[in-house]
Amino acid sequence: MSSEAMVVGVVGGGQLARMLHQAAISLGVRVVVLDPDAGCSAALAGAERFDGTWTSAEDLVAFSRSGVDVVTFDHELTDPADLRVLERESPVPVRPGPATKLLAQDKLHARTTFAARGLPVPAFAEVATAEDVAAFAGEHGWPVVLKARRGGYDGRGVWILADRDAAATVLADAEGIPGFLVEELVDLAAEVSVMVARRPSGERRAWPTFVTTQVDGICTEVILGGDAGPAGLAERARELALDLAEQAGLTGVMAVELFVTRDGELRINELACRPHNSGHVTMDSCVTDQFEQHLRAVLDLPLGAPDPLVDAAVMVNVLGGPDPWDREGLTDALAVEDATLHLYGKGHRPGRKLGHVNAVGATVEQARTRARAVADALGSP
Amino acid sequence: MSSEAMVVGVVGGGQLARMLHQAAISLGVRVVVLDPDAGCSAALAGAERFDGTWTSAEDLVAFSRSGVDVVTFDHELTDPADLRVLERESPVPVRPGPATKLLAQDKLHARTTFAARGLPVPAFAEVATAEDVAAFAGEHGWPVVLKARRGGYDGRGVWILADRDAAATVLADAEGIPGFLVEELVDLAAEVSVMVARRPSGERRAWPTFVTTQVDGICTEVILGGDAGPAGLAERARELALDLAEQAGLTGVMAVELFVTRDGELRINELACRPHNSGHVTMDSCVTDQFEQHLRAVLDLPLGAPDPLVDAAVMVNVLGGPDPWDREGLTDALAVEDATLHLYGKGHRPGRKLGHVNAVGATVEQARTRARAVADALGSP
Repeated sequence: MSSEAMVVGVVGGGQLARMLHQAAISLGVRVVVLDPDAGCSAALAGAERFDGTWTSAEDLVAFSRSGVDVVTFDHELTDPADLRVLERESPVPVRPGPATKLLAQDKLHARTTFAARGLPVPAFAEVATAEDVAAFAGEHGWPVVLKARRGGYDGRGVWILADRDAAATVLADAEGIPGFLVEELVDLAAEVSVMVARRPSGERRAWPTFVTTQVDGICTEVILGGDAGPAGLAERARELALDLAEQAGLTGVMAVELFVTRDGELRINELACRPHNSGHVTMDSCVTDQFEQHLRAVLDLPLGAPDPLVDAAVMVNVLGGPDPWDREGLTDALAVEDATLHLYGKGHRPGRKLGHVNAVGATVEQARTRARAVADALGSP
Repeated sequence: MSSEAMVVGVVGGGQLARMLHQAAISLGVRVVVLDPDAGCSAALAGAERFDGTWTSAEDLVAFSRSGVDVVTFDHELTDPADLRVLERESPVPVRPGPATKLLAQDKLHARTTFAARGLPVPAFAEVATAEDVAAFAGEHGWPVVLKARRGGYDGRGVWILADRDAAATVLADAEGIPGFLVEELVDLAAEVSVMVARRPSGERRAWPTFVTTQVDGICTEVILGGDAGPAGLAERARELALDLAEQAGLTGVMAVELFVTRDGELRINELACRPHNSGHVTMDSCVTDQFEQHLRAVLDLPLGAPDPLVDAAVMVNVLGGPDPWDREGLTDALAVEDATLHLYGKGHRPGRKLGHVNAVGATVEQARTRARAVADALGSP
């Protein structure tokens, strides 16, 4: 064991694969990414690369036969049909498997599955026409939320519609979108995320419930130690996430994004069956972070302790500002006390996720001020 | 800055370079190691490698001209004369420089320098013959400690001598050793280590004082949060280390290993002008660890906060046992709560440093029990 490293194959070489590689170094595990780009974020950090693309079932299968011990994922983009081919042809486990991934990939499938099991989801319906949307709104009221069944993330594929005309406009321009669902617009008190891990042997662990802030559908701030709402809500959220992990047959880590209603109830928003932006805060504030935990889980090794080491921590994304930062910007960023910067090695582009910062503090406010100061110094909007 | 990464060149590709690379990923910094072995610990983790050896001044200079922004070190083994050539010929800064390195490389030079400045060192003398040793012992008493001026580490190059005959035996077999010094055997209450960082601009930071345990000259346990001795001693040790960093013109991190006498006084034992085994505990217990701090320091970027996040943490080395561990051993190791394993990717050999484990706890005893359990599961003696 000490001389022959275990190998984790990761489909996609983005920043999540990069941070999986970084965590794998401590475990003595090798990470190989399937990515067509020699300059992908993970390869720049020294992860090995298998040249190919996740849009090809053939490449996925070849990757699974290249000497990896398990195949896992950096994203949700692989076509579900290709995933089924991969699972059938792969000589090694695919974790999580296609059935679990589909709960993150297909919003209508997820809603239908969870509703059938009595789990709390917003009211929803499959729709194809503006008439369908208007009928749903007749029951639940405008505005409503229209979502593409698949392919949406970071705010893409989601529309808040004020009336029937708005619905007609979006649906008229729906080429390439494989179906829609409509949902009630939940009257939000807050949004929270629970990162949960499960390994094939069945062991499950969840981190504390994080409060998240989204702007235009993009996660901008994640809070550990924040007030999620009424007493017991954070614990209810964790129990729901642990339950979902079991029901989904999860192998790996998963983000469970939840709405908190003004009545203090939880509604399942979305799942991500992989390390997730809302879990980045675990890197500098918990005994085991989401990246090491994902590796442990997909290798069916014992899960690490998710316990927080601090009273409060805040994660803020670093997005590209109008211009790249210069050395002075970086210097100002690194001069902020009790903050840790994580960059992804990507070229600058306005609005692009270039990294994130985790800051700790005695209070959420203190941690947030520090994290924001780092992002501001780098020109992040 | 966000598209053109800074590059840190590290002389030597061992586990310290490996963990520098791991830390560099978060800073978006590239690490290139000078090492003749494509399978060195750092290269296995994805650090880039420049093929060459630190025993060649020519290779060192070529390395400095290969596009790195700064040259730093994984070890103290580079010949001082070669370091001076490197400093003269390198187009980029060498940090720390040869004069600083010499304080870690040449024990007689370090003792002489510090004694001349009134800093607390054990009584010592340069010796060449058993008569010299006996003369020193006549003043300070037997046993005495004989040390090779250069090249010793992990207990090598150090002999505790009971009498003149023992001295004669060691000195008769001194081929290849470039001189000796003799020291009084300090009546130890404890040993402590202070990790300190200094950047070229002058900023200095020190972590809390760690209590260390050595067995046969090898550091086996490092304690954060432990009782170092009389009130104020830990703070005196930190101040001494910060003072030494300034006096040595340090650029990077440095370990200051100190003896604590039974009278509660400090004596400088040794310096290491690089990340150090006694600083591994910073990885999972402090805001900024020694590896990120070293990168910040050699790049003359602001230093990170060295503050501890926990009440107690213990680092234990994982040494090779009689046999390599199997999957069951690894499983048992990872099942230990609140512990983080760091493996170096090295092949098994009995007694070889294969990794370390950091455990946290409410008390030192709790953290130690956890750390030891991990090492035991891996068969570490």
